[in-house]
Amino acid sequence: MSDVNIRALAKALNLSISTVSKALKDSYEISTETKQRVVALAKEMHYNPNPYASSLRRKKSNTIAVVIPEVADSFFSLALKGIEEVAQAKGYHVLLYLTYEQYEKEKKILEECKNGRVDGVLLSVTSETVNTLHITELMDVSGGHPVPLVFFDRAPDGLQVASITTNDYESSYQATQHLYQQGCCNMVYLSVSKQLTINYRRMEGFRDCLRHYGLPFTTHNIVDCSNDLAKNELLVRKLFIRKHPPDGIVAGVEKLIAPVYTVCHAKAIAIPAAVKVVSFSNLPYAAILNPALTTVTQPAFEMGQQAAILLFKAIEKKQSPGKMENIVLPSSLYIRNSTGKG
Amino acid sequence: MSDVNIRALAKALNLSISTVSKALKDSYEISTETKQRVVALAKEMHYNPNPYASSLRRKKSNTIAVVIPEVADSFFSLALKGIEEVAQAKGYHVLLYLTYEQYEKEKKILEECKNGRVDGVLLSVTSETVNTLHITELMDVSGGHPVPLVFFDRAPDGLQVASITTNDYESSYQATQHLYQQGCCNMVYLSVSKQLTINYRRMEGFRDCLRHYGLPFTTHNIVDCSNDLAKNELLVRKLFIRKHPPDGIVAGVEKLIAPVYTVCHAKAIAIPAAVKVVSFSNLPYAAILNPALTTVTQPAFEMGQQAAILLFKAIEKKQSPGKMENIVLPSSLYIRNSTGKG
Repeated sequence: MSDVNIRALAKALNLSISTVSKALKDSYEISTETKQRVVALAKEMHYNPNPYASSLRRKKSNTIAVVIPEVADSFFSLALKGIEEVAQAKGYHVLLYLTYEQYEKEKKILEECKNGRVDGVLLSVTSETVNTLHITELMDVSGGHPVPLVFFDRAPDGLQVASITTNDYESSYQATQHLYQQGCCNMVYLSVSKQLTINYRRMEGFRDCLRHYGLPFTTHNIVDCSNDLAKNELLVRKLFIRKHPPDGIVAGVEKLIAPVYTVCHAKAIAIPAAVKVVSFSNLPYAAILNPALTTVTQPAFEMGQQAAILLFKAIEKKQSPGKMENIVLPSSLYIRNSTGKG
Repeated sequence: MSDVNIRALAKALNLSISTVSKALKDSYEISTETKQRVVALAKEMHYNPNPYASSLRRKKSNTIAVVIPEVADSFFSLALKGIEEVAQAKGYHVLLYLTYEQYEKEKKILEECKNGRVDGVLLSVTSETVNTLHITELMDVSGGHPVPLVFFDRAPDGLQVASITTNDYESSYQATQHLYQQGCCNMVYLSVSKQLTINYRRMEGFRDCLRHYGLPFTTHNIVDCSNDLAKNELLVRKLFIRKHPPDGIVAGVEKLIAPVYTVCHAKAIAIPAAVKVVSFSNLPYAAILNPALTTVTQPAFEMGQQAAILLFKAIEKKQSPGKMENIVLPSSLYIRNSTGKG
């Protein structure tokens, strides 16, 4: 950080701080001659305005925070790219925070977002987030100014907050219907945290589709997975020693596809002949998997872009986020060999 | 941002600003009674210290910048995770900037990193970066303070700057040797930008291995690809209408693997029977591709961690980055079916 500030410049020039400040901003109030003197000395003394000093004066940090559970995941990295692109075009800086699916980390991070560090927050909650007090507190700092917030992808139910989500229920229903139409009648849904709204909606879409077609729906149709790859592999193995192994699998999130494929490869269970597989995924490599994977693909990049656009609108209008929009961008079903008649 | 600052608190309490500041920091110089009065009013008036005011006083932003070409890529997203983990543990904030492989963007971003916005920079240069003046300028802001910088993965040649890289030459040589040992004698290397040191080293490793085994090395052995998926597919198609199509392919970066697999699938060119394929890649799905892909896998997460650790060491010691370490973390060759005897 440069040691030369406006005060030092003013002193050296025998001018007031306000005059120097106005001269540097090329104000019409200052004579051309004075401006030239100020600019010349500023250059000579290597004066560089500190961005945080200017942010304090303007009460604006020109910075947003992106708070997400993980980044090494094709949905979140693509959404982050969409956010960064919009922020860069707007001249905003992006602070990245990872919660690692931990509620306590999310709480601590939002605490850091108060008091002017950022002008707004883009949040995708953790799978542990049930209590949302830390979120409402951020948006309503009494005595201060609320920090605008927009959810993307993972938004908790019951909060009147702007959000960009996708049609989780419908797209899961559609994926399940596709499996049914391909001949599956004993399907399982691989679930991550039930506390997560997106997972719950996908599960409901799966369940309602089964019911619609008169198929039984019991606890056997849902498998609760975790973030642990080895444990998930074990759960998938157990599926295939059932008396009636599944003939169709809907993987609720991308990371559940590796255990399914790995176990099927190891146990020589043919996809799609013995079991058909569809997964929620943004993986650019879905088409070259063995076999090519049918996916429900979220518009990740667009969701990031739209979330950032909504947030900047709120920041610029100083609009109450509660009155803002909830935009649902549809996902797409890409049918590939993993659900073929095989 | 709260409107209540230390000045307002001091005025309301009829105390000096310095006394209030010390009281809030629980200084021994201030009486317990005064401290209690200050803390009580601060609470009542919803006083929250602004992080940038404190950063100005301390001349420390507690923020680092990560400047990378892209984030929707398994190497960079994993490295970013490693960086974020170390930064979070240190209580630092991470500003993320994407250059989209554009030199002009990189230059503009580093300009923004001056003047105290960040305490340090982690940089992986663009494929266009030849001139490095913007980098040396950042590290040597005359009249101000230099900003410590550490390169990771992509470091330009000839700069005396700390870096975390991997053994690109050796791992490429090893991958090529593996293809030779599997019976390939007409191999091509799929190259990205030749200006990029990592790509150049990988190309050299490939070339030297061919020479070592007495195989011809001509311009036919190198294919210059780009960031355009469709164009890359066309280039791969052209390979297989050559009089002597290649029997081995080394893909210099992960994104070149999709065009290779797509073309081979479309043209029914059997991997590994007709052509064996190895790629530099951090893809967690390499093992479930069709066929499972042999990879040179970089220690992406560890590279991110180590780069962050080096940077914080430089920030804390106010050490000249020029005198710092250059750490090379080895990549690993994972042999899978795509290079099998098939």
